[in-house]
Amino acid sequence: MMNISKKENLSSWYLTVLKEADIFDYGPVRGTIIFKPYGYAIWENLQKLLDGLIKTKIGAFNTYFPLFIPESLLSKEKEHLEGFSPEVAVVTYAGGEELEEKLIVRPTSETIMYDAFSRWIQSYRDLPLIINQWCNVIRWEKRPFPFLRNTEFLWQEGHGAHATHEDSLDTVYKALEVYIEVYQKYLGIFGFGGQKSESEKFAGALKTFTYEILMPDGKALQGCTSHDLGQNFSIPFEIKFQDEKNQLKYVWQNSWGFSTRSLGAIFMVNSDDKGLILPPAVAPYEIVLIPIYSSSKESLIVEKLRKIKNHLEENNLRVFFDENRSETPGFKFNKWDLKGAPFRIEIGEKEIKEDKITFYRRDTSERKTLKFEEFLKDYEDIKEDFVKKLLEKSKKLTLENFYEIEDYEEFKEIMTTQRGFVFAFWCENEICEQKIKEETKASTRCLPLDFKEEKGKCVYCGKESNRRWIFAQAY
Amino acid sequence: MMNISKKENLSSWYLTVLKEADIFDYGPVRGTIIFKPYGYAIWENLQKLLDGLIKTKIGAFNTYFPLFIPESLLSKEKEHLEGFSPEVAVVTYAGGEELEEKLIVRPTSETIMYDAFSRWIQSYRDLPLIINQWCNVIRWEKRPFPFLRNTEFLWQEGHGAHATHEDSLDTVYKALEVYIEVYQKYLGIFGFGGQKSESEKFAGALKTFTYEILMPDGKALQGCTSHDLGQNFSIPFEIKFQDEKNQLKYVWQNSWGFSTRSLGAIFMVNSDDKGLILPPAVAPYEIVLIPIYSSSKESLIVEKLRKIKNHLEENNLRVFFDENRSETPGFKFNKWDLKGAPFRIEIGEKEIKEDKITFYRRDTSERKTLKFEEFLKDYEDIKEDFVKKLLEKSKKLTLENFYEIEDYEEFKEIMTTQRGFVFAFWCENEICEQKIKEETKASTRCLPLDFKEEKGKCVYCGKESNRRWIFAQAY
Repeated sequence: MMNISKKENLSSWYLTVLKEADIFDYGPVRGTIIFKPYGYAIWENLQKLLDGLIKTKIGAFNTYFPLFIPESLLSKEKEHLEGFSPEVAVVTYAGGEELEEKLIVRPTSETIMYDAFSRWIQSYRDLPLIINQWCNVIRWEKRPFPFLRNTEFLWQEGHGAHATHEDSLDTVYKALEVYIEVYQKYLGIFGFGGQKSESEKFAGALKTFTYEILMPDGKALQGCTSHDLGQNFSIPFEIKFQDEKNQLKYVWQNSWGFSTRSLGAIFMVNSDDKGLILPPAVAPYEIVLIPIYSSSKESLIVEKLRKIKNHLEENNLRVFFDENRSETPGFKFNKWDLKGAPFRIEIGEKEIKEDKITFYRRDTSERKTLKFEEFLKDYEDIKEDFVKKLLEKSKKLTLENFYEIEDYEEFKEIMTTQRGFVFAFWCENEICEQKIKEETKASTRCLPLDFKEEKGKCVYCGKESNRRWIFAQAY
Repeated sequence: MMNISKKENLSSWYLTVLKEADIFDYGPVRGTIIFKPYGYAIWENLQKLLDGLIKTKIGAFNTYFPLFIPESLLSKEKEHLEGFSPEVAVVTYAGGEELEEKLIVRPTSETIMYDAFSRWIQSYRDLPLIINQWCNVIRWEKRPFPFLRNTEFLWQEGHGAHATHEDSLDTVYKALEVYIEVYQKYLGIFGFGGQKSESEKFAGALKTFTYEILMPDGKALQGCTSHDLGQNFSIPFEIKFQDEKNQLKYVWQNSWGFSTRSLGAIFMVNSDDKGLILPPAVAPYEIVLIPIYSSSKESLIVEKLRKIKNHLEENNLRVFFDENRSETPGFKFNKWDLKGAPFRIEIGEKEIKEDKITFYRRDTSERKTLKFEEFLKDYEDIKEDFVKKLLEKSKKLTLENFYEIEDYEEFKEIMTTQRGFVFAFWCENEICEQKIKEETKASTRCLPLDFKEEKGKCVYCGKESNRRWIFAQAY
């Protein structure tokens, strides 16, 4: 079905697989995409999973704020405005009339939310206020690429307001932990949690935390962000509260987001030349049932698969019975390999005779014939093992392309050949960072969370430094 | 807590209750609202419920299409363009540049979806194609009112493409049935399913079906719509398929939507002077637990309520334990009456001594002290009864304000006094409809689904007519 090698031409492989797997189509406006049912179902499953974690682990409540932000609100925090101005879309007329004030289509909702926070928060009793929102956002992309850089994307944005900086930081880290849990435990995607540099942090934040994922072409993908906003917004938006001692104080804030970019990571990282490999937690169908029709046993085969389908659905598994008669079993095997269904149950004459099923797993291509009850007993473990193996594979790929570099020539060499994560000392001066970017296209991705203090010299200027940063070319 | 009568001043009562119950706040742009957590949770529950019905009963798959529609696409169907032009918001520049083509912020997604349908549909094997989308839409409202008429609202829009008109109509009716089921079985809101007149139908539809709900002030609310689009879009968008005999044909289409307007119906219809009465299926908390603290039994009370909470949550019920110590039980009773929690369990010294619970239901204000196990056994029946009673009450209100009218003077009289649904013969000429609207502010709401043929005379011009229509002033 496919004859493009993932290794040889990643972006062409990616676009071909996503089209053939019926994940997306292009929208009419450049940089926009249509999520087709098979692609959207992955987001729905991921959303449900993450929504539960956000409610239980971070304690956020869902809300919905308007799409349109008056220009004057967006302008209240200077760095935020400067950061987002070049990429916003602007509504200038509506209802048949030119608007008095231009409306910004939200690129993120800090400003519109914090305007409300200033009314909602009066006393320490109103804190913490932690809310979340699932919505669409618009950021005009100069070089769009499906899922990884779209003009419109879907995401959740969480926003916390707290009485102290410490409390706020607690939420910043909790959010990052939840995201890392999703990537590692559910999606099987390795990466580095860490802190962004001053020039790479969110416009308006004190600090930004991220999860940086290595893509198979050696470029990095920022998988999520969690920002410590300090009092950068609470001061211009006048979000004040009376503390226990009746003193008026500004709140401490944070915001954190996880978007449909993550689907791009799933597609690029967990896949091979045959197509996608979807983690069971988010696959539209975790098990696909395929009949190997045979004239003598046909009704028995169908009957058995129907029973299995009902049984699995009663156990809340997402199952698809591919009954289609115009496609051969071989065609279906290729199709579901391409579409990344993690598991299949195949039943033909042999399985009917032996009263067994043939169980297939997409990652290893292993087939095993066994009793249905036996399979069912082990299924939760198999799922867990499946994700564990994905994570191991992605960790292996990342570490194989992780270079501790002291020498700038070597750094440049890597960035013009195989690329990857370069782990190098940096003096933390923005000029060196800028020069490196100009000369190698690699930017600082993050200071890993668990960095060790070491003595070294900035890979660019040679000044003393006591910690290494991860550099990479980025999506 | 409240001292506004619902009967005396509905809109002031409505706005006060919704603010005090923490349902919404105003957004900075006129006509927009912020869904606060307690308000958004109602939509989340409703969404989950309706999403399940749409998937299982209509067989639709969820998708996501872009927010921005190029002006040229919106213009492809003439009536559609004319209908929506006056109320769209328009993006004219983005990414720092003036756009070559203006972008319409979707007021509904027919045009952007059907452009894709023309690529996706080639053969009868691709049909039916039934998709659904949960999203935000923008329609510039001249006279906004929270939930009932907002510039931005949330909804689901379903879209079907079929090989025959008959198949398409089947989906039109199925969608309407699902909506009526939601209103009647889950929300307890009576109304009339029916067909819109030519002048009131959706811009671009052959026919539009609706569910018309009587609000307590005698005005009608259109609760949802389901449109038979015929081939009105498939022709300009060239959505063609090869049938079994290799003939090229245009598809037959439908679209159907249900929005956050429905929350306005819940708030206005199911409520009283004490506040909201939320149907258990969508209430953020169906049961609120209230401790009547007493120094001698305090720890026993808390312990018992914690156990109850765990037990109920294990049964997948949405429960809130209002432990707050700065509010008296009486204050909490009023607060949860206002916020519309359908049921409460109250536990104080008495209940501990008797090893019972006191169970309260919001609609009747009844309190009953009984064994917890006894309550649990009957709870599903109580919930069902609760919604049944809401539906009966709303049906009673509707029928008390339903007038079979032959005389136009009487029609006018009703519309200047108590208002309500006027059921009258109409010749189906748009001129009479227009005159009636100018003179009484009442428009045709619908031809009820189960209308009987009768002989009569148009209430306005006296021409012969064989069926009555429902007229009302509308939100």
